[in-house]
Amino acid sequence: MIYITRRERFNAAHRLFKPEYSNEKNLEVFGKCSNPNWHGHNYELFVTVKGEVDPETGFLVNLKTLSKIIREKIITKIDHKNINLEVDFMRGKLASTENLAISIWNELEKPIQALNANLHCVKIYESENNFVEYFGN
Amino acid sequence: MIYITRRERFNAAHRLFKPEYSNEKNLEVFGKCSNPNWHGHNYELFVTVKGEVDPETGFLVNLKTLSKIIREKIITKIDHKNINLEVDFMRGKLASTENLAISIWNELEKPIQALNANLHCVKIYESENNFVEYFGN
Amino acid sequence: MIYITRRERFNAAHRLFKPEYSNEKNLEVFGKCSNPNWHGHNYELFVTVKGEVDPETGFLVNLKTLSKIIREKIITKIDHKNINLEVDFMRGKLASTENLAISIWNELEKPIQALNANLHCVKIYESENNFVEYFGN
Amino acid sequence: MIYITRRERFNAAHRLFKPEYSNEKNLEVFGKCSNPNWHGHNYELFVTVKGEVDPETGFLVNLKTLSKIIREKIITKIDHKNINLEVDFMRGKLASTENLAISIWNELEKPIQALNANLHCVKIYESENNFVEYFGN
Amino acid sequence: MIYITRRERFNAAHRLFKPEYSNEKNLEVFGKCSNPNWHGHNYELFVTVKGEVDPETGFLVNLKTLSKIIREKIITKIDHKNINLEVDFMRGKLASTENLAISIWNELEKPIQALNANLHCVKIYESENNFVEYFGN
Amino acid sequence: MIYITRRERFNAAHRLFKPEYSNEKNLEVFGKCSNPNWHGHNYELFVTVKGEVDPETGFLVNLKTLSKIIREKIITKIDHKNINLEVDFMRGKLASTENLAISIWNELEKPIQALNANLHCVKIYESENNFVEYFGN
Repeated sequence: MIYITRRERFNAAHRLFKPEYSNEKNLEVFGKCSNPNWHGHNYELFVTVKGEVDPETGFLVNLKTLSKIIREKIITKIDHKNINLEVDFMRGKLASTENLAISIWNELEKPIQALNANLHCVKIYESENNFVEYFGN
Repeated sequence: MIYITRRERFNAAHRLFKPEYSNEKNLEVFGKCSNPNWHGHNYELFVTVKGEVDPETGFLVNLKTLSKIIREKIITKIDHKNINLEVDFMRGKLASTENLAISIWNELEKPIQALNANLHCVKIYESENNFVEYFGN
Repeated sequence: MIYITRRERFNAAHRLFKPEYSNEKNLEVFGKCSNPNWHGHNYELFVTVKGEVDPETGFLVNLKTLSKIIREKIITKIDHKNINLEVDFMRGKLASTENLAISIWNELEKPIQALNANLHCVKIYESENNFVEYFGN
Repeated sequence: MIYITRRERFNAAHRLFKPEYSNEKNLEVFGKCSNPNWHGHNYELFVTVKGEVDPETGFLVNLKTLSKIIREKIITKIDHKNINLEVDFMRGKLASTENLAISIWNELEKPIQALNANLHCVKIYESENNFVEYFGN
Repeated sequence: MIYITRRERFNAAHRLFKPEYSNEKNLEVFGKCSNPNWHGHNYELFVTVKGEVDPETGFLVNLKTLSKIIREKIITKIDHKNINLEVDFMRGKLASTENLAISIWNELEKPIQALNANLHCVKIYESENNFVEYFGN
Repeated sequence: MIYITRRERFNAAHRLFKPEYSNEKNLEVFGKCSNPNWHGHNYELFVTVKGEVDPETGFLVNLKTLSKIIREKIITKIDHKNINLEVDFMRGKLASTENLAISIWNELEKPIQALNANLHCVKIYESENNFVEYFGN
């Protein structure tokens, strides 16, 4: 069993808030992250895949293929976008980094199985001081 | 003459566009950075100050004072904000990193002179691949 | 189950030595880290917490609260201090990074449980080439 | 149980290819990494060791000893070398990062046991966007 | 006058040697960098351009255009290549980082002038500990 | 004219204070950096040298020689030491990063001239947020 990780990056706007809360309540719970005019981040996404090394190629997976899947399923949908308004796999969800990691896991799990590998971890840096990791249920 | 640099960080949403352009024209000129629903960045701001070492303290400037000025004049106004809509010193300007660097210079030049030092450079990283530097006219 | 990590930093002096050893023996075992006049580091502390996402907020824990706990329990006690002489939770212990990680775990475990989460890992970088991780017993 | 990690670096040339493939087939499978004239990388190697803290020293292992083992067994053999042509522990293997991680594990496992510790992970960064981890079978 | 910098990366093999030297003399002058079987690096290239901000766009230059020029003129010719054997603008030159910086300057100077800007600096990191800067004559 | 930079690192303890001040006055001027029990840092030192490329070697200076000079003149004297008590070139000076940069310049200027090059800049990072640059008078 070996693990390989690919980093991809995206820039996006978001806002932490609940529509059923008042602005005051949102501010109390989410602080400056609830700014109604949005703010944004340079997100770093690390996708870790596990499996066996293919003796024919010496690869677990071809990193170009893995990168292509991440770009198709995630980056093209979220890069330079508004996470709350424009990203299909985040629709109706609070735009926290935790929910983002879980949603990205759900988008990537099946396409990565099609590579004869298993998704192991989705890790997202929101800033140099904060990151979230999700390993599935 | 010695140079000292303080790094501060802020997260913000922005959009590159000209109100007098059509959406198509904005897209052509500014690409995905003109997304009408905004996107955002983790900006890194490096402020470099130059002057003589004070023999009494061994300091060019007290970094706590320098940091306090940058926070008061810049960070509290721009962090977790929308650069196009909410930042007084960017009002009416295209929200490019170039204009941001020039505007931050204009905000900081005088307060830093009050420390018996001179602003030397404002450097802004918009992403790990791009940064802008402004040294005044 | 999801994992979230907060980075905090501190600068401190320390010395590796055993009072019952001679200076020569300390030098032999601990090398230049046993310098009687101390040396120091910029430490990076990564605290990883695990638990369930709160559906009300989209958060595992509020990062501001987590950061406040780490600052109160650890950073204010160790930042710009001498680890051997001034840090209550290191009293009587060899000031190695291993012991520091275990001691910080012991300080943080209960306060983090009060957030309805569990401490998962304390990771400390002593330099860009060395780090220690502790996951509890 | 505690974990300590040491980073070492090496620069090397390599080529991904199978001698039994034609150049065209190698290009199809391995892309530009199969360039017959080689290419190269600044590799970063992270070796993680686990075990108990020695109450006498506060150490899991002496990092100088760990570093010396990694340098002797790995770095002196691979740094500024051609991985395909000159590295004994890679002889006859495809020079992928996956195979490199497994081979380095095999070189380090026993010497680290001699330190009363266990090798936990070999992690290799091939570029800032790709890394491989191996934890043994 | 404002300065904007674009980072691009490439991986390449190279060897420091003079064909008119013996192997022994090459080893004496260039050390392990003269390994006849090559070694390699992950190079980071920073291209800094200077000029006036275009009031129409808020840009000094369009970074996509700048990136495209660097990729066309430099990266496609050197990435995953052997600098000594395959890079036209390094033909007949010692493959030192100094010569690489000067040669890249010569390739980029004119195409950047065509953008109504001036090349200010070519900076190349060969490793995290070494970099070269060239500002033209 | 070309510029080459070598990074070296050192860990040290220090304290900002003036012996003629009271503890209260030191605390007022230097804040927590005046802790009488010391604190410390992982310093990063960047030494930039300028000159002509030697057509015989393609080098401005041999980086191994440059590194050896920096280690002999600076690193062996300051690494794992107390800057206030043990470093000859800092004797009698306030242990600020500004004074450290100037003193390191004075130690390196002549030995680098002996390499047929000129010292251009001494840059010291005290933390990821602060650095000082000195270019001589």
